[in-house]
Amino acid sequence: MLFKNITVLDENFDVIDNQYVGITGDRIDYIGNSEPSVDYGEVFSGNGRLLMPGFYNVHAHTPMTLLRGYAGGLNLQDWLFNKIIPFEAKLTPDDVYYGTMLGIAEMLKFGIVSTTDMYLHTEHMTKAFIDSGAKINAGAGFVSFNPDEKLTDNKDYQITKYLYENYHGICNGRIIADASVHAEYTTLERILREYCEYAVDLGLNMQVHMSEMKAEHEDCKKRHGGKTPARYFYDIGMFKVPTTAAHCVWLEDEDYDILAENHVTVATCPISNAKLASGICDAKRILDRNINLAIATDGVSSNNNLNMIEEMKFFSLLQKVRGSDPTVITPKQTIKAATVSGAMAQGRKDCGCIKVGNKADLIVLDIAQPHMKPVHSMLDNIVYSADGSDIEMTICDGKILYKNGEYYTIDLEKAEYEVEKRRLRVLSEL
Amino acid sequence: MLFKNITVLDENFDVIDNQYVGITGDRIDYIGNSEPSVDYGEVFSGNGRLLMPGFYNVHAHTPMTLLRGYAGGLNLQDWLFNKIIPFEAKLTPDDVYYGTMLGIAEMLKFGIVSTTDMYLHTEHMTKAFIDSGAKINAGAGFVSFNPDEKLTDNKDYQITKYLYENYHGICNGRIIADASVHAEYTTLERILREYCEYAVDLGLNMQVHMSEMKAEHEDCKKRHGGKTPARYFYDIGMFKVPTTAAHCVWLEDEDYDILAENHVTVATCPISNAKLASGICDAKRILDRNINLAIATDGVSSNNNLNMIEEMKFFSLLQKVRGSDPTVITPKQTIKAATVSGAMAQGRKDCGCIKVGNKADLIVLDIAQPHMKPVHSMLDNIVYSADGSDIEMTICDGKILYKNGEYYTIDLEKAEYEVEKRRLRVLSEL
Repeated sequence: MLFKNITVLDENFDVIDNQYVGITGDRIDYIGNSEPSVDYGEVFSGNGRLLMPGFYNVHAHTPMTLLRGYAGGLNLQDWLFNKIIPFEAKLTPDDVYYGTMLGIAEMLKFGIVSTTDMYLHTEHMTKAFIDSGAKINAGAGFVSFNPDEKLTDNKDYQITKYLYENYHGICNGRIIADASVHAEYTTLERILREYCEYAVDLGLNMQVHMSEMKAEHEDCKKRHGGKTPARYFYDIGMFKVPTTAAHCVWLEDEDYDILAENHVTVATCPISNAKLASGICDAKRILDRNINLAIATDGVSSNNNLNMIEEMKFFSLLQKVRGSDPTVITPKQTIKAATVSGAMAQGRKDCGCIKVGNKADLIVLDIAQPHMKPVHSMLDNIVYSADGSDIEMTICDGKILYKNGEYYTIDLEKAEYEVEKRRLRVLSEL
Repeated sequence: MLFKNITVLDENFDVIDNQYVGITGDRIDYIGNSEPSVDYGEVFSGNGRLLMPGFYNVHAHTPMTLLRGYAGGLNLQDWLFNKIIPFEAKLTPDDVYYGTMLGIAEMLKFGIVSTTDMYLHTEHMTKAFIDSGAKINAGAGFVSFNPDEKLTDNKDYQITKYLYENYHGICNGRIIADASVHAEYTTLERILREYCEYAVDLGLNMQVHMSEMKAEHEDCKKRHGGKTPARYFYDIGMFKVPTTAAHCVWLEDEDYDILAENHVTVATCPISNAKLASGICDAKRILDRNINLAIATDGVSSNNNLNMIEEMKFFSLLQKVRGSDPTVITPKQTIKAATVSGAMAQGRKDCGCIKVGNKADLIVLDIAQPHMKPVHSMLDNIVYSADGSDIEMTICDGKILYKNGEYYTIDLEKAEYEVEKRRLRVLSEL
């Protein structure tokens, strides 16, 4: 596949017009001003189009597509415990598969090529990613409330083990099994320590919810002799493996030190944190400490879409208004947090930017729309002016998965039909 | 024109499937479950589509489309005084006309049928609205720094008079001339009082910037013996005419009383206020006082688009995170603020909702996209899940102005060409 005369957002975030970009197999193998001599087969004319890296969504619960718009406008406790958890308790493996598939369709439409995800029936969620051609770092979301439970008897441990043994690294590295811990308040210390040791033994990445809500953060300190969630997880040994900590809204001074020293990625979910009124993380401080910061959608039921173009704008503007300073974050920092910083968090070292040798995880943006003109600054236009639907094409590992409303690997009609049928069944059972 | 089997968002914000909606001339004259006996001519099948009111954008500077993405990431003072104002000083009447036309193209794409606008070369901005078929409440933005200036010598007074005499109420009420005052800090008291008396004499609506920035609000109090901008404007007599006060981020206790008692509309610009780090207005308090609250984009150079779907989501989520309470604003309140509350602010009493006898200012939303499924709540999906580009058709006064990327009244290619040429000329002159 060859793109010709296309504008490229390169690995330095410079915008370069009239480029040729060649893809062979799953990798980019040519970028240049002139037409390559090799025959690449299919050629795409890039007039009025921008080629940029696809988005890496570092915290999501994709199957929650089934719950889009369900029980909105409640306070967080009501929403989660009286509505969301009872709904989720009714979900079957196939519900999760089809909910995931519809979610992936939406993500591909909005340019997301890879997702860090934590959900129940994890194998079935992962299966949908395998079938769709998109990338996943799959986690079960470890939970344990029984002080006597043996690690090997724990269901989430068993799923983690199953994912590792059956899916880790398959599809040429597209599918990755992660260790994952739901949160401090849904586990007990002894078994969590053992689970983290297991993650170290296997060399897995870790996902965790951390300091999302003020009450969660403060309750942790009460339970653990003043330790914040970051301190508690550090002491338990969680951060011995590369960890992505979602939310991090309520970090305290020492927490920034811990995250920086242990190379923990912060997965910020700006829309979800605003919609649930959890708060706004301090991105400037995170970036000033050279902590890896990546942007994520969280689950659709607290967003309520999977639109990373929108998420970038929210992220940037929430930071500006939070800090009472319009200079606090730049478009370049924002795009980096939605692309290469996310790929790094997922352990995908050859992904996230357009350079020769990297995996071809790409999106084509229509920059000829009236809301994208004129161009005083293309990076400003991408972050502040673009609309999610400006994405025309989404490519993962060199394969076109989405193009102008068409899906090449997903039967959208079937996914929509199954989601509707299953949603109504769950509602009837509640 | 007849819509058949379309889902309708009705005047009570109820969502009703399988409706017939008939339009004759510029008005809606049929809504019902069954096919009307009258022959309406062109018939649109509404399968997978939602018919809702168009958006009323109650504060904008549409010609600033020329400055999209110009001088981003600066602090407000640098941005405004060292970049924006010098650029604007170079604008010719034709620059304003074409900048406006490209801005209208974008607004129609994103469902805006009517705009309250304040800008220089106001006649030429207004001319673009006339030519495009969209609605405008046009204001000059009164400014006066000379203590000896006579009202009748003031340029903005003269423009207001010209607009009133030549444009007010033309195109069957589509074009409205407003009085408008830039802000407290850009006028002097004596002449402002005279200008407000002139507005009362003519029975014009008033537009004004008010309490956008903390420093602006506090400086007003220093200059005027502790009077807030709201108090100062009230004392001057501004609120004797129906007034739309843009921003209102820094209101104090008494200000809410003044706005409520004088039926002043608050035009909140959530994205602009976040991007310039001005702050977040207190929508709950405004609505609790029964003050009319309407949503606006502000100028594109502090947004940087004119996408009311996006603006609604930002509005709602900023309120939730501001109030640390996810229940603080509902989707219904949000949609109301983007539609009928805006029409009321503009003095368009027969606009803003779908009912028989009202002007046919309508948009058709594609609700069959994957990110709009499933539907637990259509109102939640409209506010939190929709994408600006889901708008397929925009109708103003019964005329289709935009449909699936096509413009019926705007030569988009020419507007884009002229904007690009003029933008480069201004940059070369700076």
